[in-house]
Amino acid sequence: MITSSHRRFNPLTQDWVLVSPHRSKRPWLGQVEKKPPELLPGYDPDCYLCPGNERAGGIRNDNYTGTYVFDNDFAALLPEVTHQKDSQTHPLMKAEVETGICRVVCFSPRHDLTLPELEISAIQNVIETWTRESVDLAAREDIAYVQVFENKGAVMGCSNPHPHSQIWSQSRIPNEPQKELISQQMYFNENHRPMLQDYLTEEQRLKERLVTENDHFIALVPFWAIWPFEILVSAKSNASRLEDLNSSQVEALADILKRVTIRYDNLFETSFPYSMGFHQAPADGQPHPEWILHAHFYPPLLRSATVKKFMVGYEMLAMPQRDITPEVAAARLRELSETIHYRSIS
Amino acid sequence: MITSSHRRFNPLTQDWVLVSPHRSKRPWLGQVEKKPPELLPGYDPDCYLCPGNERAGGIRNDNYTGTYVFDNDFAALLPEVTHQKDSQTHPLMKAEVETGICRVVCFSPRHDLTLPELEISAIQNVIETWTRESVDLAAREDIAYVQVFENKGAVMGCSNPHPHSQIWSQSRIPNEPQKELISQQMYFNENHRPMLQDYLTEEQRLKERLVTENDHFIALVPFWAIWPFEILVSAKSNASRLEDLNSSQVEALADILKRVTIRYDNLFETSFPYSMGFHQAPADGQPHPEWILHAHFYPPLLRSATVKKFMVGYEMLAMPQRDITPEVAAARLRELSETIHYRSIS
Ligand SMILES: O=P(O)(O)O[C@H]1O[C@H](CO)[C@@H](O)[C@H](O)[C@H]1O
Ligand SMILES: O=P(O)(O)O[C@H]1O[C@H](CO)[C@@H](O)[C@H](O)[C@H]1O
Repeated sequence: MITSSHRRFNPLTQDWVLVSPHRSKRPWLGQVEKKPPELLPGYDPDCYLCPGNERAGGIRNDNYTGTYVFDNDFAALLPEVTHQKDSQTHPLMKAEVETGICRVVCFSPRHDLTLPELEISAIQNVIETWTRESVDLAAREDIAYVQVFENKGAVMGCSNPHPHSQIWSQSRIPNEPQKELISQQMYFNENHRPMLQDYLTEEQRLKERLVTENDHFIALVPFWAIWPFEILVSAKSNASRLEDLNSSQVEALADILKRVTIRYDNLFETSFPYSMGFHQAPADGQPHPEWILHAHFYPPLLRSATVKKFMVGYEMLAMPQRDITPEVAAARLRELSETIHYRSIS
Repeated sequence: MITSSHRRFNPLTQDWVLVSPHRSKRPWLGQVEKKPPELLPGYDPDCYLCPGNERAGGIRNDNYTGTYVFDNDFAALLPEVTHQKDSQTHPLMKAEVETGICRVVCFSPRHDLTLPELEISAIQNVIETWTRESVDLAAREDIAYVQVFENKGAVMGCSNPHPHSQIWSQSRIPNEPQKELISQQMYFNENHRPMLQDYLTEEQRLKERLVTENDHFIALVPFWAIWPFEILVSAKSNASRLEDLNSSQVEALADILKRVTIRYDNLFETSFPYSMGFHQAPADGQPHPEWILHAHFYPPLLRSATVKKFMVGYEMLAMPQRDITPEVAAARLRELSETIHYRSIS
């Protein structure tokens, strides 16, 4: 591997990332983030996601005991059939109507239990909820893509610490899945195997970027990772959507999510912030043999619980840049326990 | 224009942005940012960018009186001729050696004067420095692109409040300019006019997204803006690089930068954070009739000096999303003074 600065190619998005291995010694004198509070109550009377509490507009949550799903009170996408038309007043000003449905999925009634702290069975329950909602939304005529994601931590724009995820579904395939669709289809047409299958095989041979795996899933820092401790979690089978997983695969996914997030929390001994989400095949009812179900974890922290990587000037105007290599990041993540959470020792 | 949620197309990058006009009433209970300090000293003995002070590794700054340029002490790109080769161990793991030069450009000796607070002549001096450095770097065999940018404010990863910008130049064209190159070339081949020229003509006719203009430059919130108060500053002439500007055009650019940044500071009565940078034509010594010199301002603030827009889960995994429309943002920016800075009234 090149040890001086270099760029690496992401075959899923067809974009490049600049890697500067020598730069990790840079001192940091800029903004530091607030640490998340170490202890939250199991129930918070002021939390609009806790069971029985009131949300925006006076709606009251059920006294739920498992997961809890409701339509986002401030949805970015609305299902209403508007009588508006696509508008193109000039060839350089193209706008298209976009409808959709946005839902919120609370992981459990517990205000204080994040993914790594939930029992495997509770995580399975979360996955089954994501699956059920994905199937329900995908069945609609007006939905072309279902994006399941979690913003965790205030630094990732999460406005409520009660562990929850979101599902935004919409009438057209958004940018990122669209790029992945084209790349995976091209690769499949040429090689007659899914791109991620070939990629995982090679990573399992090399081992240097692996973080953890079980019978049905693998977690690794991708060769083209942008974020310091980015992780790709991928199915080993040909599943292309959550609904394609059988019950032991769902359990394996719960297991790998728990292992990955325990490692994350142990890295800087903090509730590790990230945005994560699943890339499933488009909701077109068609088989997608080129597409392997996977999740991306994009965590911002760089060197401690309070120092993050800023994707700013150069990154916004030119290309993403990273200091520590994916190989070093994977090695650091591999050293940590994936079964014992730092908060359980004391 | 569509008043419900819709997507808009960016012809420079070929990407889409989701616009949710109805969502601007969403209350914000998440992270708030620290306000930048209102008053800084003109000289700070602890600042490694102030004249005469010591930087990393014991180097001492000149007692400079105008702009001040030096090689970044922690450069992400290094010029050294390594004997490393591009590496491709597998078709899905492509890496290429990337060399380059990273420089820092201090705007002036004054620790406390940001762009909007500098005299026009001092801003001209900054532009002339960017131009000289761009020409110098572009003349090198090993440089294919020169990226001039400024990260302003701690929230934008700026690690020193002493007003400064950076220049990162490198041996291959990075992602964003490469996308803009292809789009502008395609448009030029089809229409025999630069894309931005046609776009500006239409915006001048419509006026609803204009922010300000002078004889040689125009500033507007682009139709496809991602950030709440994003601004595109574009030359009206056929200049495709900073070096193509004559002296009255340089003065006009200084003038428009001052007007735009005064409006920004006045919007929330704070030193407005942003990343900004110039997209010049590639440093290939060739004419680029398709390319019009422009700068992008990407400011994160959404509704106050302390509440920013988070580009997180959905945005990272699916596509950028915005709440207030570009038209509303432009109207708000138009209402503000562009000559009187809020701090000068009191
Ligand atoms: O070079 P600086 O100002 O120390 O660093 C800042 O700008 C760079 C270029 O956009 C980024 O890579 C860094 O993450 C950011 O903190
Ligand atoms: O929906 P939330 O959690 O209030 O909002 C958060 O996630 C959204 C989806 O990634 C983003 O658009 C918002 O900027 C962010 O603050």
